[in-house]
Amino acid sequence: MSNTFGRLFRFTTWGESHGPALGVVVDGCPAGLPLDESDLQRDLDRRRPGQSRVTTQRKEEDRAEILSGVFEGKTTGHPISILIRNKDADSSKYEPLRNLFRPGHADFTYIQKWGIRDHRGGGRSSARETAARVAAGAIAKKLLARLGVSILGYVDQVGEVRWDGAHFDADEIERNIVRCPDAETASRMEAAILEARKAGDSVGGAITVLADGVPAGWGEPLYGRLDSDLAAAMMSINAVKGVEIGSGFRAAGMRGSENNDPFEMKDGEPGVRTNNAGGILGGISTGAPIVVRFAVKPTSSILIEQDTVTTSGEKTTVKVEGRHDPCVATRAVPIGEAMMALVLADHWRLGLGSRIE
Amino acid sequence: MSNTFGRLFRFTTWGESHGPALGVVVDGCPAGLPLDESDLQRDLDRRRPGQSRVTTQRKEEDRAEILSGVFEGKTTGHPISILIRNKDADSSKYEPLRNLFRPGHADFTYIQKWGIRDHRGGGRSSARETAARVAAGAIAKKLLARLGVSILGYVDQVGEVRWDGAHFDADEIERNIVRCPDAETASRMEAAILEARKAGDSVGGAITVLADGVPAGWGEPLYGRLDSDLAAAMMSINAVKGVEIGSGFRAAGMRGSENNDPFEMKDGEPGVRTNNAGGILGGISTGAPIVVRFAVKPTSSILIEQDTVTTSGEKTTVKVEGRHDPCVATRAVPIGEAMMALVLADHWRLGLGSRIE
Amino acid sequence: MSNTFGRLFRFTTWGESHGPALGVVVDGCPAGLPLDESDLQRDLDRRRPGQSRVTTQRKEEDRAEILSGVFEGKTTGHPISILIRNKDADSSKYEPLRNLFRPGHADFTYIQKWGIRDHRGGGRSSARETAARVAAGAIAKKLLARLGVSILGYVDQVGEVRWDGAHFDADEIERNIVRCPDAETASRMEAAILEARKAGDSVGGAITVLADGVPAGWGEPLYGRLDSDLAAAMMSINAVKGVEIGSGFRAAGMRGSENNDPFEMKDGEPGVRTNNAGGILGGISTGAPIVVRFAVKPTSSILIEQDTVTTSGEKTTVKVEGRHDPCVATRAVPIGEAMMALVLADHWRLGLGSRIE
Amino acid sequence: MSNTFGRLFRFTTWGESHGPALGVVVDGCPAGLPLDESDLQRDLDRRRPGQSRVTTQRKEEDRAEILSGVFEGKTTGHPISILIRNKDADSSKYEPLRNLFRPGHADFTYIQKWGIRDHRGGGRSSARETAARVAAGAIAKKLLARLGVSILGYVDQVGEVRWDGAHFDADEIERNIVRCPDAETASRMEAAILEARKAGDSVGGAITVLADGVPAGWGEPLYGRLDSDLAAAMMSINAVKGVEIGSGFRAAGMRGSENNDPFEMKDGEPGVRTNNAGGILGGISTGAPIVVRFAVKPTSSILIEQDTVTTSGEKTTVKVEGRHDPCVATRAVPIGEAMMALVLADHWRLGLGSRIE
Repeated sequence: MSNTFGRLFRFTTWGESHGPALGVVVDGCPAGLPLDESDLQRDLDRRRPGQSRVTTQRKEEDRAEILSGVFEGKTTGHPISILIRNKDADSSKYEPLRNLFRPGHADFTYIQKWGIRDHRGGGRSSARETAARVAAGAIAKKLLARLGVSILGYVDQVGEVRWDGAHFDADEIERNIVRCPDAETASRMEAAILEARKAGDSVGGAITVLADGVPAGWGEPLYGRLDSDLAAAMMSINAVKGVEIGSGFRAAGMRGSENNDPFEMKDGEPGVRTNNAGGILGGISTGAPIVVRFAVKPTSSILIEQDTVTTSGEKTTVKVEGRHDPCVATRAVPIGEAMMALVLADHWRLGLGSRIE
Repeated sequence: MSNTFGRLFRFTTWGESHGPALGVVVDGCPAGLPLDESDLQRDLDRRRPGQSRVTTQRKEEDRAEILSGVFEGKTTGHPISILIRNKDADSSKYEPLRNLFRPGHADFTYIQKWGIRDHRGGGRSSARETAARVAAGAIAKKLLARLGVSILGYVDQVGEVRWDGAHFDADEIERNIVRCPDAETASRMEAAILEARKAGDSVGGAITVLADGVPAGWGEPLYGRLDSDLAAAMMSINAVKGVEIGSGFRAAGMRGSENNDPFEMKDGEPGVRTNNAGGILGGISTGAPIVVRFAVKPTSSILIEQDTVTTSGEKTTVKVEGRHDPCVATRAVPIGEAMMALVLADHWRLGLGSRIE
Repeated sequence: MSNTFGRLFRFTTWGESHGPALGVVVDGCPAGLPLDESDLQRDLDRRRPGQSRVTTQRKEEDRAEILSGVFEGKTTGHPISILIRNKDADSSKYEPLRNLFRPGHADFTYIQKWGIRDHRGGGRSSARETAARVAAGAIAKKLLARLGVSILGYVDQVGEVRWDGAHFDADEIERNIVRCPDAETASRMEAAILEARKAGDSVGGAITVLADGVPAGWGEPLYGRLDSDLAAAMMSINAVKGVEIGSGFRAAGMRGSENNDPFEMKDGEPGVRTNNAGGILGGISTGAPIVVRFAVKPTSSILIEQDTVTTSGEKTTVKVEGRHDPCVATRAVPIGEAMMALVLADHWRLGLGSRIE
Repeated sequence: MSNTFGRLFRFTTWGESHGPALGVVVDGCPAGLPLDESDLQRDLDRRRPGQSRVTTQRKEEDRAEILSGVFEGKTTGHPISILIRNKDADSSKYEPLRNLFRPGHADFTYIQKWGIRDHRGGGRSSARETAARVAAGAIAKKLLARLGVSILGYVDQVGEVRWDGAHFDADEIERNIVRCPDAETASRMEAAILEARKAGDSVGGAITVLADGVPAGWGEPLYGRLDSDLAAAMMSINAVKGVEIGSGFRAAGMRGSENNDPFEMKDGEPGVRTNNAGGILGGISTGAPIVVRFAVKPTSSILIEQDTVTTSGEKTTVKVEGRHDPCVATRAVPIGEAMMALVLADHWRLGLGSRIE
């Protein structure tokens, strides 16, 4: 069950960083949705390596092939199998890393659990797996668009550079290479990334993902809450160490009179005036935008020498060479969006039949 | 599936705040574990209302009755059904709230989803449900103790009062009514709570939960990661708005060279020197303590007048009378511990058979 | 997961034969369904022991208490917890059986698996657990009735007496104590049961359950097929050793030209002319009645001396005294109906959202 | 969830009969199992079309490619993705069938459910999907062999020819093209198949699958019973209409004194003397061979003219041309074995941790 996410709209991923291919099987997509490979490509392109000077230089086209589940341009309700070939894997750089544990990576824990690991490019623990999620997420987004839901993510923090939230320009996000909604902040973020890389180091960051148009009433009680599922979804992304909904950790410092969102009538419908709740009350959507924020740790692979031990228990040091993102936040934007979309698509189906008329 | 948590060691809760009883069915507990009702009572007592001047004054004994799954003092491997009677429900205070939406509560979203809700004491959305989790968690804790794992939670923030982490005294936690590991900070936290209550208001907080003794190698890839499951678990607790593992959101501002935990040999075994990872790498335990922190929003029920609307769409205002905790953080400690224990018990079983010798 | 059945409309049972109570938690029932305890009682009365001269003489009222999930006479969408007290348990008869394995029972396998078992009345392996299913099934039946689906079961075989299918009188079923749709056959069945009992022996039987009004298109591919779920459901009932759909095992001896059901137009809608398929093609309903038949083995508890061994490995013999049904088929009718209803209610919810318009 | 089977050792299949490929993702296989493509090929060869004069003449090599989850010849604990290309699809024969409902097939129900179907070769409802299960099953068999469990299937009935059970020669099974353990019966079965084909017709059959070496104590209560899971597994195979365990439907006609299996000591261990229970009591294995039998209906595709209707509701007739097995029983043998193996591999993992020592 570990490589499957979701209940009714669900997907299963497979594949290693340096294997012949990776892929995903999406099950539970309703029949009748127009779908072809180009629908998947836009987000794959936003996620793929080598897209700018702040990302890894591995060159992968990340072309998605749809092998099943689509007939004459429409989904059939059957599993949609998507295959993405690995083309630019270079395992030679990983040979010296075969028998030691890279700090911050899953090398040690994978060996502890399974006694065996594919060390090439991180094997299964590589963030390359997220290409599969992004492909699956593109299907979920297309379904959600039919239901009036749109999803948007952006970087709001890189290291110590934090966007102040003052100027939000949705169009700006994809115009700059860090995906920040404010051009000036974006350039400071870019500088922070390049500075870290120059030092052989890396830097963390944070991403916000919004979902607009989710009607009130999506989500399940009590262990299938929308916020609970979103927390699991975002935390399942490589390098994520924290997730918050709406006011999030700030709520710990607030008073109820500040944090509560008053209700009011808008266009004849009740709704919240503010959105500290991040669009979710009691695990169920309020109709306001869903707001999720998550933190990514600085990339574990750095060129600075670090202490570690070998698989046979000897002290050593390691500098992790290879092609790495100095900050994973920018490429994490489409991944966070994909996970948001996948959670929402699942909840759309889960909620059907919640009441009888 | 919404009222069930876990895969192999799993539980299902039921019951409303003002119904005759609430309860939980625990399935997947191994046979042979000594268990009686007194094992459940200690944590139930730590969670129950009315225990101190900073909690609600509702008086509930929260006596757990075990109705199945135990034979001659030991678990049998069959479902353990636990029943807790509601004895001090007073629904009269909720009558004026029947037809309006309390800000910050699930009233609105429940009506949107189901078209019907039990308004008495919040019905199913009441935090009273957490008694059931705490009872289930006590079983998980007893199982984990057999496996060498112990769990400890405490409050580290109440409103703007944040523990500085300097003096940690595990014995202090249960000596003060806010459950902070430092007596001096605890008294400032208590003052903050009482001040908020005096103003008819409430205040948020944050809780840290630690698990010691978890061996390296627990956790599943990729959508069954330990951190992912913990995030879902904590976020499923009423009022929780954020979850972080190890360095958490601080990691967004850090560099890789700071955040990575070097490996070293200790007593002939490899392990991490520091624990920014919070005991989890690649979703799998490192052998270091598991560290989870979560934020609870300020209690939504406040005596200050707030704008809202009625179920029939008219503007109105509401002061929420009744017996409420001015800060839910202190009672959330055993709940967070329970969820940690329940996730770990499940992962213990999930991990068996991960490799063949 | 073992004590839970279903995906979206699901239930979890708990309780032992001689414990204080047994029960079930039903999760996923839509909100808004009128429900009270009397809705559960009719089928509980049809299943309960002591109802006629061909059933066990244990006297249980099997009164169902609803503890949650219903508010002002309607379901709320939250878990419905049902409690049934055990009142006439007499454990003394089981004391001599504590340390030996009754042939045909789960005594041996339970000890092999868990190392411990509640021997009183069979503990968790007792068919008394089926009371919980019948209560859950009554809720499913009420939901299905709203959707135009009705369910009917009957006994078609007792030992060597097999109903010839010639005269079907639905009203006759509950008029005779074996629940056969033909009075004359019923009396021969009754005689077969009484004859077996007189010999201290027991006899097997078979039950057919029909569901009428299921629209075409219910069921999931490929591992959630309606027939696959029904097979699992019926096989999960104590003593069941075989399940067949439509022509079932007879199909093995048939030709395609005989077994295929031609399509034809009826009232402007396509449908099948015959129903060898038992209402299911490719795992999905055709709109014709769903027809499931299952075989129950002869009751394992008999008064005839049988060879066996003790838990410490000594040869011995056993006559199983106590209050047992000489044929479980008659009481299995409402149980089979309940399982049919529970599968169908689940599939109703599962199928929603299968296509977008 | 519909295209996934199993809980811990689980698999997900995808692909249509005439798409570019089909495949399966196996998740939950323990790490450390030696595995390569040749391990999958033997059973794929036993299942593939075109292997003898009693099977379809479609020519498919059914070569399995392993794309992930194996490193340096051993499983890694990560998903094993297997791809099988479709090479000999000939869709032209299906063009005339696009707009009508073939009797006995899923054409009608698929359209009712999804409003769209890939008519080419039956699309997703084709038995071609079973190649994926057989590949997955080969992995399960290899794992089980390490645990001392072996699996063997054979045909015991073709139309009215039923094996009398007198002479059992395991080596004979794969020597004859119908896979019957008795050569003389096999030749009569072959004649029955060829006679049906000559008439443009088809014939049903039945298969028995045995598992030897399963220790006592595998299986879960109550809705995860071994027999319940096996019933679901076998019923999920195309064309299966009935499943029985041990004495099965014969038990309906028996007395308890006949059907009960006495316990006795063998080599110092308690066990059953006879095996009417088919190796399962209370849903849990007894240590005796697991015995499952299932019936397959006669192939729905026949050359005899049958009444049907078009998708637009007009009466018509159809003769189903193309390359079809006149009896699917012989090729169902490895499929039944695969499903047995997959259920048992799952139960092996499920049972770990059932008790604490």
